[in-house]
Amino acid sequence: MCEQNVYLLQNGREELVMEAVDVIDPEGENGYRVVGIFGDQKIIRGRLRHMSLVEHRIVFQAEGEEDCA
Amino acid sequence: MCEQNVYLLQNGREELVMEAVDVIDPEGENGYRVVGIFGDQKIIRGRLRHMSLVEHRIVFQAEGEEDCA
Repeated sequence: MCEQNVYLLQNGREELVMEAVDVIDPEGENGYRVVGIFGDQKIIRGRLRHMSLVEHRIVFQAEGEEDCA
Repeated sequence: MCEQNVYLLQNGREELVMEAVDVIDPEGENGYRVVGIFGDQKIIRGRLRHMSLVEHRIVFQAEGEEDCA
């Protein structure tokens, strides 16, 4: 099974948005639609921060969240 | 094996950028660094267009490429 877990970095913490994600599509200017293998959907506002597919991790960063350099 | 294949939509065609991708990170304002499981790296200029993880497909769209509505 090659689905990924999607996290959102918000207020300095990574929150799990959805497990077993299949599809991710852009949604508007600053968002993404995340669709699970069972068809459940969520909209994330933010941008892609990091993907590590071998670790099953896709991390988005909420708008306004500071970059940690 | 849960790595993904990364494609770039450019001039109306999808070109395979890299197979067996592990990591994708933002690189500058409009780019992404794509890293394979063996450490090979490429920089893509463009934005995320579609991910279908069950199909092992991650598609980026080159800057200036028209959206097909």
